[in-house]
Amino acid sequence: MQIIRSVQQMQQRCLTARQAGKRIAFVPTMGWLHEGHLSLLREGRRRGDLLVLSIFVNPTQFGQNEDFDSYPRDLERDAALARDVGVDLIFAPEAADMYPRGYQTFVDVEGAMTSVLCGASRPGHFRGVTTVVTKLFTIVQPHVALFGQKDFQQLAVIRRMTADLNLPVEIVGMPIVREPDGLAMSSRNVYLTDEQRRQALVLYRALCEARRLVAGGRTDSAGIVESLRAMIEAEPETRIDYVEICHQATLERQRTVDADSVLLLAVFVGKTRLIDNGYLLPTD
Amino acid sequence: MQIIRSVQQMQQRCLTARQAGKRIAFVPTMGWLHEGHLSLLREGRRRGDLLVLSIFVNPTQFGQNEDFDSYPRDLERDAALARDVGVDLIFAPEAADMYPRGYQTFVDVEGAMTSVLCGASRPGHFRGVTTVVTKLFTIVQPHVALFGQKDFQQLAVIRRMTADLNLPVEIVGMPIVREPDGLAMSSRNVYLTDEQRRQALVLYRALCEARRLVAGGRTDSAGIVESLRAMIEAEPETRIDYVEICHQATLERQRTVDADSVLLLAVFVGKTRLIDNGYLLPTD
Repeated sequence: MQIIRSVQQMQQRCLTARQAGKRIAFVPTMGWLHEGHLSLLREGRRRGDLLVLSIFVNPTQFGQNEDFDSYPRDLERDAALARDVGVDLIFAPEAADMYPRGYQTFVDVEGAMTSVLCGASRPGHFRGVTTVVTKLFTIVQPHVALFGQKDFQQLAVIRRMTADLNLPVEIVGMPIVREPDGLAMSSRNVYLTDEQRRQALVLYRALCEARRLVAGGRTDSAGIVESLRAMIEAEPETRIDYVEICHQATLERQRTVDADSVLLLAVFVGKTRLIDNGYLLPTD
Repeated sequence: MQIIRSVQQMQQRCLTARQAGKRIAFVPTMGWLHEGHLSLLREGRRRGDLLVLSIFVNPTQFGQNEDFDSYPRDLERDAALARDVGVDLIFAPEAADMYPRGYQTFVDVEGAMTSVLCGASRPGHFRGVTTVVTKLFTIVQPHVALFGQKDFQQLAVIRRMTADLNLPVEIVGMPIVREPDGLAMSSRNVYLTDEQRRQALVLYRALCEARRLVAGGRTDSAGIVESLRAMIEAEPETRIDYVEICHQATLERQRTVDADSVLLLAVFVGKTRLIDNGYLLPTD
C-alpha cells in the first residue's frame, strides 16, 4: 500500500493504471475510518483491480461555525485499517494542492435536492461536496465509486451530478453500518459523552418507531413525524434539525407514506450533529 | 469519418480509443465552420491519433434575447469541410440528450473573470460554456483540446476551469483567423448586410489604431480607449458593448499598457454582436 500526497502524481498514477486496463474502485472519505467506511472498502476490493481510498477533510463543505478544525484526523491509524482491508493507494492531498491560490471553479447541483434537509441547515455544504467529488473523480479516474447510504442526500446529489456531467463512474450506495445497539456509525460519534451516546440512540429508536407505525397501517407523514419529534425531544440534550419523510429519488416531502418513502433525521445531541435515515417500508 | 449523435455511444467510443492507447484531439464548436475552426482542426490533426469535432449549438450559453434560434446550422456542409481536414468523428448531440429532463448540475468559474466583459453583457453565458465544456470533456475524454483566441475571455475561463477541476486535458489556444481585409472570422458574420460587413471592419481598424498609438509611445489606457470609441462610433450602425484594455491572464482592467495588455472589443453592428481582440505590444 502506498500513500500519495500530490494531486499530479495521483492523477498520473491512475491514468497509467487505466491505460494498462486496470479497473479502479474508489472510496472517498474524510478519514477517521470506521466499520461503515471499511464495508465500502471491502466491496470496492471485490469490484476493482486497484482500490483507492482518499482521505481529505474538505474545507469547502464545512460552514463557518462547523467542526472543520476539530474533525478527527489520524492518518497512521487510518492507514493501518486500510492496509488490513486491501487498499492499494491512499490519496491524502493537502488543501493547498486541491485549492491552490486563485481557485475559482465550483460544481453546483441546483434546485430542491440541495436546498432542503442538510442543504437548508448547511448552506454551501453540497456545493463543497459536489466540487470536491468532481475533482476527486477527475484525479482518481475511477470506474466505480462507493458511498455510504448514511449520507442519503449526499448520495442522491452525487448520483445526479455524475449523471448530469456524464462522469463515466458507476456510483454504488452501501447500507448503513450500525453499532450493536443501533447507532449509525459516524466519525462524529467520537465527540459524544457517555450520556450523549446513550441519548443519541433515539435516532435509531425513532426510525424503528416510524417503521412500526407504518407496519401498523399509518401512512400520514405529518402524524408520524409529530410522534417522532416528541420522542426525540424527550431526550434532554437533543435539538432537532429536521425530521422529514421524503421521496427517495427527488427528496421532495411526501404527505403519504409509500414504497419510495425515506425517513430522514438530523439531530444535535449536545453540540454534535448526527444524521440517520431509512426506508419506511421493506425494500426487499 | 463517422457522425455520432448519442452521448453514450460517443463516450464509449472515446473510452475505448483511450484504452487502446490513442491520443484524442478535440475541437468543440457550434458548427457553421469557417477557416478559424479549420485551423483548429488542422492543428488537432497534427496533435492526435483520433480527431474529434463536436457540433452543438449549446442552449445554456445563450441568453433569453440572443440568437439561439437563428444561429446558422448546416451539418451536411460542416461534415464535408470536416472530412476534408481529416476529422475522424463528429459528435453532434441533441440538446435533449445533453440536458435530459431533471438536469440540474452547473459548473461555474466565479469572480471577476466571468463577470466582466462578455460576462457583464451576457449574464450566465460563461456558466453555460463551462458546463457544456466540462460535459464534452467527460464524454470525449480528450488529451488535448483546441480553442480559438477570438473568444479570448472564454479561453481564459476554460483554462481556469480545466486547472481547477484537474481535468487531464491540455488546452491549446490558436490565433485569430481573419478575412483578407482584417475582419475576424465568425459564424455570426453571415448575419451582416453588405453595408454592415463594411462597417464591421472598424473592429480590426480599432485594434490597428491601438497598436499604432502604443508603438508611438502612448500607454494611458483611458486615452487610447477614448480614441477607439470615437472611431467606432463614427460608423452609423455600430453600438459599442465594451472597449477595454485588460491583463491577459486575470482580465482585470489596466490603467497602463504593458506586455500583458490585451485590447478587447465587443460591438453590435446592426443587430449582430461581434467581438475581437489582440495584444497591444508585439508578442514574439
